[in-house]
Amino acid sequence: MEFDPSTLKYNEAGLIPAIAQDATSDEVLMMAWMNADAVRQTLETGRVTYWSRSRQSFWIKGETSGHIQELVEFRIDCDRDCLLVIVNQTGAACHTGRRNCFYTLVDNGVEHITLEVMD
Amino acid sequence: MEFDPSTLKYNEAGLIPAIAQDATSDEVLMMAWMNADAVRQTLETGRVTYWSRSRQSFWIKGETSGHIQELVEFRIDCDRDCLLVIVNQTGAACHTGRRNCFYTLVDNGVEHITLEVMD
Repeated sequence: MEFDPSTLKYNEAGLIPAIAQDATSDEVLMMAWMNADAVRQTLETGRVTYWSRSRQSFWIKGETSGHIQELVEFRIDCDRDCLLVIVNQTGAACHTGRRNCFYTLVDNGVEHITLEVMD
Repeated sequence: MEFDPSTLKYNEAGLIPAIAQDATSDEVLMMAWMNADAVRQTLETGRVTYWSRSRQSFWIKGETSGHIQELVEFRIDCDRDCLLVIVNQTGAACHTGRRNCFYTLVDNGVEHITLEVMD
C-alpha cells in the first residue's frame, strides 16, 4: 500500500509523536513531534525533521548543531498515532550534549544522572 | 534527588507519553500514556501501568491478556515530558498479537508489514 502521510492520526495540534532510536546501539535517543509536512520532508530528504512546538517551525535535527539524524527506517505503530524513526545519529541527540535524552534514572525513589555530556 | 511524580510535565489532559523498550532485545515495543498516579503505581508495583485514554481508566498492561510488562528501568527525558520504561515483556506487547506495535515499515513510499502475529 502506498504511504500517505495524511492517513496518520495527528493530535488536535496536528502533531504525531516520533521516537528516535539509534540504528547501531539500539538506544532510544529522544522523542519529538512531527506534523504531516515534517513526515513528508523526513521521507523525501532522509534527514529527520521534526516540528518545534516552542518555535512553531520545522526543526531539521542537527541543522545548527551538526548533530544530524540520517533516516534508516521509518515505522508506524498499530494505531497509526506514533512513529519510530531508526537513525544514524551524529554526536549528541540531546540538547544537553548527552548522547540521548533519557539520562535520568529513577531507582528506589531517587533520581540519578547516568550519562555524561559528550566532548 | 528524591523523585516526585508531580515534577514531571504532563499535557493539558494530565498525561505524559511513556515509551516501552524490551530489556533483552532492545526493540521499542509500544508507546502509551501515563498520568501521575500511573507513574506512582508503576514504580510501586513494578508492573507497568498506563492510563487508557479510550477507557479513561488505569491500564495495568497484561492484566487481561497476560502480556505483562515487568519494570526493569524507569527513565525520564531531559525536558521531563517523556518517559522510557525498560521492561521484561511477556508475550506480545501489541494488541494485534505482534511482538511490538511498530510492525509497519515505510520503504520507498510503500507500507510493508514486517512482523507476524505471535502464536
